[in-house]
Amino acid sequence: MTNHQIRLAARPSGIPKPSDWALTEEPVPEPAPGELVVANEYLSIDPIMRRWAAADGPVGIGDVMEASVVGRVSASGHPGFAVGEHVYGGFGVQEFARSDGTGVTKLDPLLAPLTAYLAALGIPGLTAYFGLDVGRPQEGDTVVVSGAAGGVGSISGQLAKLRGFRVIGIAGGQEKCRWLVDELGFDAAIDYKAEDVGGRLDELAPAGVDVFVDNVGGAVLDAVLLHLARGARVVISGGLSQYNADRPSGPSNYLQLLWQRASMTGFLTPDYEDRYPEARAELAALLRDGRLISREQRVEGGVRAFPELLPMVFSGASTGKLILAL
Amino acid sequence: MTNHQIRLAARPSGIPKPSDWALTEEPVPEPAPGELVVANEYLSIDPIMRRWAAADGPVGIGDVMEASVVGRVSASGHPGFAVGEHVYGGFGVQEFARSDGTGVTKLDPLLAPLTAYLAALGIPGLTAYFGLDVGRPQEGDTVVVSGAAGGVGSISGQLAKLRGFRVIGIAGGQEKCRWLVDELGFDAAIDYKAEDVGGRLDELAPAGVDVFVDNVGGAVLDAVLLHLARGARVVISGGLSQYNADRPSGPSNYLQLLWQRASMTGFLTPDYEDRYPEARAELAALLRDGRLISREQRVEGGVRAFPELLPMVFSGASTGKLILAL
Repeated sequence: MTNHQIRLAARPSGIPKPSDWALTEEPVPEPAPGELVVANEYLSIDPIMRRWAAADGPVGIGDVMEASVVGRVSASGHPGFAVGEHVYGGFGVQEFARSDGTGVTKLDPLLAPLTAYLAALGIPGLTAYFGLDVGRPQEGDTVVVSGAAGGVGSISGQLAKLRGFRVIGIAGGQEKCRWLVDELGFDAAIDYKAEDVGGRLDELAPAGVDVFVDNVGGAVLDAVLLHLARGARVVISGGLSQYNADRPSGPSNYLQLLWQRASMTGFLTPDYEDRYPEARAELAALLRDGRLISREQRVEGGVRAFPELLPMVFSGASTGKLILAL
Repeated sequence: MTNHQIRLAARPSGIPKPSDWALTEEPVPEPAPGELVVANEYLSIDPIMRRWAAADGPVGIGDVMEASVVGRVSASGHPGFAVGEHVYGGFGVQEFARSDGTGVTKLDPLLAPLTAYLAALGIPGLTAYFGLDVGRPQEGDTVVVSGAAGGVGSISGQLAKLRGFRVIGIAGGQEKCRWLVDELGFDAAIDYKAEDVGGRLDELAPAGVDVFVDNVGGAVLDAVLLHLARGARVVISGGLSQYNADRPSGPSNYLQLLWQRASMTGFLTPDYEDRYPEARAELAALLRDGRLISREQRVEGGVRAFPELLPMVFSGASTGKLILAL
């Protein structure tokens, strides 16, 4: 039995190229006492992976690439995990992973489909949930979401809508924008590839943007900064436009925070781990009721497909949560 | 009797030049019923004036330049103001100003010297006071202040020190840095003109910066962002480095807000007007006790001196609060 793996072969410059990765194989690991082995089933393809592969990231040259994964225990010497149980963890871009159980969560396949644990019930959904917390929208507020057709943004916008706020999504392409308005119930959507974001915000949010949940940065962030309402909250849950940049660039219009008495706050979802059960319960109930739509774009192809897949999250070629099925 | 005035002649590009201003004269105004006339005595020279003169600022071409001024009522048709009373207001760069009393504050010359109402008891001192409020330093925190030898920064740092925090100032030049440490009691100072700000922060704040009160922006802001402690608060009270820029530039390292779960919050002092009495009482008591040092650099020369004086607040040629005496 062979374990195929994708390892980091070279530090990417800009969008990662296929030559930045190496396909390797080794025997499927055996669990030592206290360990388990997981057969990976679904891998989450996330923009943040680009940062993990950067020189200051956690993945070294020659290491198996990190990934959030849903799998099934295939062998166990760990008293807490039985063969056949479904688990979630940072099992990496490979077919099998050995683990001592640290950071491994058991999943209930009856609560939601397994892939939901990488999407609406996973880091994207949890990031959307706690990002709204950080933004503290108040009654009557206008909430703007960037990367709105993505794994985080599509949930952020729907949650904001379910809580009664006016929601404007920013996404790339007419089709995505139509999806946001027609299927997800956003009040409006701006196609940043074809439209002038600032001009559209003038029309759509004449009183200004109260909460901006930003997963993108760059020109979109700068445009929204010029349209903040007084006391606005900008929530930074990511910076997709920056992950591939050799030289980072900041929001030129940051002094709008001063003129508008506004704030910009970053947060990382794992800090809210003690509230995951609360968030997952709400998200799972909304999913079950059909009040929350989670679009997953599932690609078959095994770990070999990873090098071609990762660039899709930057080009905007994917809609919803991109998942690699093994 | 003639009223000499400085009017905006051209929109400045970069640091304002003498040719951006025109010296004009007109008769000293007479107060109509309900109005007062003020003989201006001291003018505050502030970095923010550069923004007032910009195309999107409040001063039009041909207008008398705006300024915060301490003066004395020279004629009055207003029931609330008597000739001889000392007042503070936005009376402009001119020798006499007519006012209907809106936004005019009476001053008590017994509480503090008149010029203190432009410095420690004026907008700079109040900005320092409320900026610390926004930054919410906690016990054991390290507070960093930029523009630390300026009107706002020198008070910010001293207040933070008086409240028991560790304080590092960033200023331009050895002499200013010595003043911060030897006379104002800062724990340390970094000379951004001669030293590597990041390297010095590594040494001086190895556990990171908890609160950064920033009045400057630009390279200094970027350097401090790379040294934020987890959960840090960046308070934006100004952006001196940006006011002369034809194209604004933002903090390239803004994603540190994400990695460090930090926030950046802008505020404008006039929003705290209802708390001015509380703040002035504390600041005045500290000044009287000698626990707060307010350095004022007073320049004689009348309104004619204004065009040469304003660039000094950007070049770093002044220390403490720059005041023009008429």
